[in-house]
Amino acid sequence: MTKTAIIAGTGVLPGILADRLDETNTPYVIAELEGFAMENPKGRPVERFIVERLALLFDRFDDLGVEQVIFAGAVSRPAIDPERIDPKTATLLPVLLPAFQQGDDALLRAVIALFEDAGFSVVGVDSVAPELVPGEGVLTTAQPSQDDKADADRAAKVVAGIGALDVGQGAVVAQGLCLAIETLPGTAAMLRWVAEVAKTCRANPNGAKGVFFKAPKPGQERRIDLPAIGPDTVVQADAADLAGIVIEAGGVMLLDPEATIAEANSRGLFIWARTP
Amino acid sequence: MTKTAIIAGTGVLPGILADRLDETNTPYVIAELEGFAMENPKGRPVERFIVERLALLFDRFDDLGVEQVIFAGAVSRPAIDPERIDPKTATLLPVLLPAFQQGDDALLRAVIALFEDAGFSVVGVDSVAPELVPGEGVLTTAQPSQDDKADADRAAKVVAGIGALDVGQGAVVAQGLCLAIETLPGTAAMLRWVAEVAKTCRANPNGAKGVFFKAPKPGQERRIDLPAIGPDTVVQADAADLAGIVIEAGGVMLLDPEATIAEANSRGLFIWARTP
Repeated sequence: MTKTAIIAGTGVLPGILADRLDETNTPYVIAELEGFAMENPKGRPVERFIVERLALLFDRFDDLGVEQVIFAGAVSRPAIDPERIDPKTATLLPVLLPAFQQGDDALLRAVIALFEDAGFSVVGVDSVAPELVPGEGVLTTAQPSQDDKADADRAAKVVAGIGALDVGQGAVVAQGLCLAIETLPGTAAMLRWVAEVAKTCRANPNGAKGVFFKAPKPGQERRIDLPAIGPDTVVQADAADLAGIVIEAGGVMLLDPEATIAEANSRGLFIWARTP
Repeated sequence: MTKTAIIAGTGVLPGILADRLDETNTPYVIAELEGFAMENPKGRPVERFIVERLALLFDRFDDLGVEQVIFAGAVSRPAIDPERIDPKTATLLPVLLPAFQQGDDALLRAVIALFEDAGFSVVGVDSVAPELVPGEGVLTTAQPSQDDKADADRAAKVVAGIGALDVGQGAVVAQGLCLAIETLPGTAAMLRWVAEVAKTCRANPNGAKGVFFKAPKPGQERRIDLPAIGPDTVVQADAADLAGIVIEAGGVMLLDPEATIAEANSRGLFIWARTP
């Protein structure tokens, strides 16, 4: 089995991936960026590292026999303390520092390149836990209607259109009309707003209830930072009185597939992984 | 003076335009689409018409010496009752009915063409009341800072980007980050959401407060249906803790310029009509 390092940020994803690797008896190590502690209910051992000593993490991975790394969880841009930089990591700075001046995508690509240059392959969630990233298909008992599919088409166009603007990755469309677009405050805040305000704006109160659509940005580096939904998203979509959730096939994670699908089935919502 | 017909829909705009025409002693008549009564605090006489008898309205305008028409106020697509169609209007249906199947812009263009074909010139608000559609300049005592101008640049890009999607005409940007995008529920609902939820999402709580930006859609027919702001918008933007309001110069109406600017001055917000 390929020895794998999970580069962990905050949230539940690192622990979920570790569970999956345990199930398949894949050996792994968890490396956690200082200041961005993962949720760690099982108290797994973690190696802590800092960006200023990234080269030492590479050495440590070599010692441990790590062959591939997978990024999991959220981090924001860490501040860099010049006094903590070791000599070996200093040689990486001509690549790393300019990337810090750029957008998120450019920074992520530079970080991936550094790991690859150090001899590690960088893989996405789908390669170690494909069940977390559904391909085309309806995952639930409930199925999208023709109206729901038309709403999904419209929402996909809206989300693709805003993708280039780096604003958000989701939208709500009902009866062809865009009720909400995801922005900085995120999915939960948007769906709460639809529940409280926007759901009364549907043209026909008895018509199609609408869909929440989520997709990665066009051209997004899919080995890091895939958008995700979970059981909470289903609860929020139900509160917003939507018919279901549409995700881009192969581009959006289910953080806990069994619980997410069970939640949708118990509420009569559909979840459809849709090919773009 | 050119005899003018105001084609009135709901809201305050028809009355405001009538006030302006009174001030300049321009003769006018108000024609109101049945089912979409204007706000008429001064109890002005109105001619009522129905789409099914549009040709009779043209005849009436000819009798009254009307030379130009201006559309003011909001209407939604009226249902058409075949039994009410008069023979002369029936000849217009080959143009009108297909337009009813299309988007708002296409319908508006078809309606404008019908009036023009009947011999009336169709003019925009700016031609009878230019003070309602400000050109480039800051209208208030408060001025936008460099940060505010950068936020306006970003917001203009976002609004131009969503314009092609026919979603909305406004956005809120603070410190370079898009907090909200206007959708079907409109400006007031969006700004209320920023006030209640999104304003805590600013990266730096002490940094630039951000702007509300509003512009017409790219390619929008500017003789009908310009976006508008008013004193209420200023109150809402202040509640959302924004630094000011940016509108596209020549493309957005101030429904009541004096009251809107006074409201902004009393609250320390700027209003900037910005050249794209």
